[in-house]
Amino acid sequence: MLKLNCKYADYRIIGEEHGLKLDEEFNNYSEKIAEIIRNLNQRKDKPNEWLQWMNLGYNEETAWYVKEFASLVEGRFENVLILGIGGSALGALALTEALLKPYWNFLTPEQRNNFPRIFFLDNIDPDSINGLLDVLDLKKTLVNVITKSGDTAETMSQFMVIKDLMEKALGADYRKNIIATTDKKMGILRQLADQEGYKIFYVPDDIGGRFSVFSSVGLVPFALVGLNIDKMINGIKDIDLALKNTDIHQNIAAQFALIHYLMDTKKGKNITVLMPYSSRLKYIPDWYVQLIAESLGKAVNKNGENVNAGLTPVKALGASDQHTKLQLFNEGPNDKVITFIRVGEFDTNLEIPRIFEYTGIGYLGGKTINDLMNAEADSTMVSLSDNQRPVLTLSIDKIDEYNMAQLIYMLEVQTAIAGELYNINTFDQPGVEQVKNYMYALMGRAGFDGSAEYLHEKLNAEITM
Amino acid sequence: MLKLNCKYADYRIIGEEHGLKLDEEFNNYSEKIAEIIRNLNQRKDKPNEWLQWMNLGYNEETAWYVKEFASLVEGRFENVLILGIGGSALGALALTEALLKPYWNFLTPEQRNNFPRIFFLDNIDPDSINGLLDVLDLKKTLVNVITKSGDTAETMSQFMVIKDLMEKALGADYRKNIIATTDKKMGILRQLADQEGYKIFYVPDDIGGRFSVFSSVGLVPFALVGLNIDKMINGIKDIDLALKNTDIHQNIAAQFALIHYLMDTKKGKNITVLMPYSSRLKYIPDWYVQLIAESLGKAVNKNGENVNAGLTPVKALGASDQHTKLQLFNEGPNDKVITFIRVGEFDTNLEIPRIFEYTGIGYLGGKTINDLMNAEADSTMVSLSDNQRPVLTLSIDKIDEYNMAQLIYMLEVQTAIAGELYNINTFDQPGVEQVKNYMYALMGRAGFDGSAEYLHEKLNAEITM
Repeated sequence: MLKLNCKYADYRIIGEEHGLKLDEEFNNYSEKIAEIIRNLNQRKDKPNEWLQWMNLGYNEETAWYVKEFASLVEGRFENVLILGIGGSALGALALTEALLKPYWNFLTPEQRNNFPRIFFLDNIDPDSINGLLDVLDLKKTLVNVITKSGDTAETMSQFMVIKDLMEKALGADYRKNIIATTDKKMGILRQLADQEGYKIFYVPDDIGGRFSVFSSVGLVPFALVGLNIDKMINGIKDIDLALKNTDIHQNIAAQFALIHYLMDTKKGKNITVLMPYSSRLKYIPDWYVQLIAESLGKAVNKNGENVNAGLTPVKALGASDQHTKLQLFNEGPNDKVITFIRVGEFDTNLEIPRIFEYTGIGYLGGKTINDLMNAEADSTMVSLSDNQRPVLTLSIDKIDEYNMAQLIYMLEVQTAIAGELYNINTFDQPGVEQVKNYMYALMGRAGFDGSAEYLHEKLNAEITM
Repeated sequence: MLKLNCKYADYRIIGEEHGLKLDEEFNNYSEKIAEIIRNLNQRKDKPNEWLQWMNLGYNEETAWYVKEFASLVEGRFENVLILGIGGSALGALALTEALLKPYWNFLTPEQRNNFPRIFFLDNIDPDSINGLLDVLDLKKTLVNVITKSGDTAETMSQFMVIKDLMEKALGADYRKNIIATTDKKMGILRQLADQEGYKIFYVPDDIGGRFSVFSSVGLVPFALVGLNIDKMINGIKDIDLALKNTDIHQNIAAQFALIHYLMDTKKGKNITVLMPYSSRLKYIPDWYVQLIAESLGKAVNKNGENVNAGLTPVKALGASDQHTKLQLFNEGPNDKVITFIRVGEFDTNLEIPRIFEYTGIGYLGGKTINDLMNAEADSTMVSLSDNQRPVLTLSIDKIDEYNMAQLIYMLEVQTAIAGELYNINTFDQPGVEQVKNYMYALMGRAGFDGSAEYLHEKLNAEITM
């Protein structure tokens, strides 16, 4: 089971100026936290509360439906290509990188047990899209286009380019190489997929993109590349019980959320760094960055007051980033809470041979790369605490479906709790609507030309220096 | 030539609360900036000033030597494997990703004109190292081990693992598959490489890792995969002249540095976001993050006063991160300066076909992916400025060796200028020394056991919550 060590955020370890009195604070906030947890669990089944992601651990029906499709197409495709952006891609990207064998897309079909390679197009760079099309044989590629609304311009423009090429390459059969993941009732993609006859998976109601990884948005890609989605669901189920505990002393999501909230509001630390000590977890922080940035970065609170709340999430990776960011973490402004993710057991035990014994690197021989990774993490934690920088540690036993799902789900739950502490709407994203309207105006979408003149003026403003 | 647009950081566009009076500030700081630029250029040839990177545009001799070696081994290797961490890897990683054809390592030898694939091992994850060894045929791999000091534990432990495997696979011939990039005179790697008979490239004196990309640290990898290092050097030479201009009105490095300095010290914005609108430039922010974090994150200034200076650099990518971070950038704390990198012309012009014409995505048909990328960047810039968030834009004509070298070199020069404005030592990294000592203690390196007891105590401290 996932564990949290928060003693390196406590005043008894890192001092009173930067450490929290966690013993007192947990008691002070115990009722508030209990109320938040009760409230979230009461609201979660109601419409328009956007808490349906809290039910995804009990989603056997979707899992069954997804597995059925995956077994139907097993062995038929060399590649899976995901078209999606933001929440439609990041969860699946982060978890396939963590759970598949490293360098998956470079392995032979035998090394992959004949499961397909998986590629993500989550940007609209013309050179990169073209480059990927040089690499993929579209005849052997299953394209999964993912957008809940169905009109995400980046995803749908990629889809238009690729659908056209597939039709040219495959004739009428191209339809068997396309699946759509979208809203059950609404939107252009829903309508097109019906007309065209693509297999469709549904994004359930009241689940935002950044909380969608255990819906069909993530489950379909996972099943297609051979990951065990039942184990994920079991992992969520087990930790969900623990995270329903209203006692903050027993609830690591509540502890994680409260510590970040207090470090921000009482100690001025509004940057949250997520730093796994594992290359396989390198994209987990990218997923976390979206989760935190979009959920907590809000101009107004629930009372309509202007607050400009938000933690700025920063991606890091141990041990590499000891050579890039640690200087800043140790000596720069003390404005960060740094969370390590530690892995109990790696899949591999990699021994360093006893060579160059009588040189300055001889001490490494006979140890393992694993020893070194652990020594690096321990050293960095102690060094940060010497400098009174708060560190939290999340520990998982090993990198597998069960444990990774727990990690991800806990981070979602803590985000919901943090949103309640900040008294903001965790689940909307009003700050990106205007950008879409501007983009439609610049691209000439009918009905959106109202701002064209304003945009033109602003883009061409001249000032003298 | 590289351009900077800073009008979206000016009070006349984003208002007085968050915008700078750039007209006044450029005048106020014109003498200070002129003095800094003169001073840097006077000091740059002196030993122990760590400014030798300012001479790398005039480094024809090394370029010649590197090209000679590259042509000698051309066609001999299927893979180049870089062993290096931090500054020994990030520059080459960022620039090969930008300059090679996208998805380079997936292309056929013909598509790569028979130049090798390139892999970077910049972490010590046992699963990932093992995974890469499943992918690479060591007999067809040229290993470049890069560490100036020669005793970087992460790099040298990787090297020990791989050297041992190569010797087993290749017999005595393995030496032809290894090159070392290290200090000219000192260190264990220098000594081993001599004894073993590896080809050696030198990291020049007085160049730190984060400023080393245009030394042999980067030039060797670039030449091996067929990039034109002469064009890079020409790019640097041309912009170096412009950046020697002591008039701030003409010097974009000075403008970039001063704006960040003033936004931090006068407006409380101490987060710097680098956000290229190009997937090929996606690792440029990773390189920038190290440059800024290690150079400016300093506990004490040159007068020995405790300042805890530093900007926290944040990586972003347009247009993808409009769907992950933009909500925070627009509505969260107004504590960031966001720098876009815009590309004038992509290599590819990718048209969106006129399909689905009478649906809500019909407006995309007949446009290009390029149009969409530009519309996204313009929309985001205007939206950020509506929310009084400062945006700088760096523009390059296209992604090639000449222009990318200018971008990288300008960012280095502005960092040196910023360090002088903050009055700190830009080129040291005292905050990571203790971590190394702790790590040596935990790994049992002779002579470093002094802190073992302290570490043990700290790691096992128990407190009650």
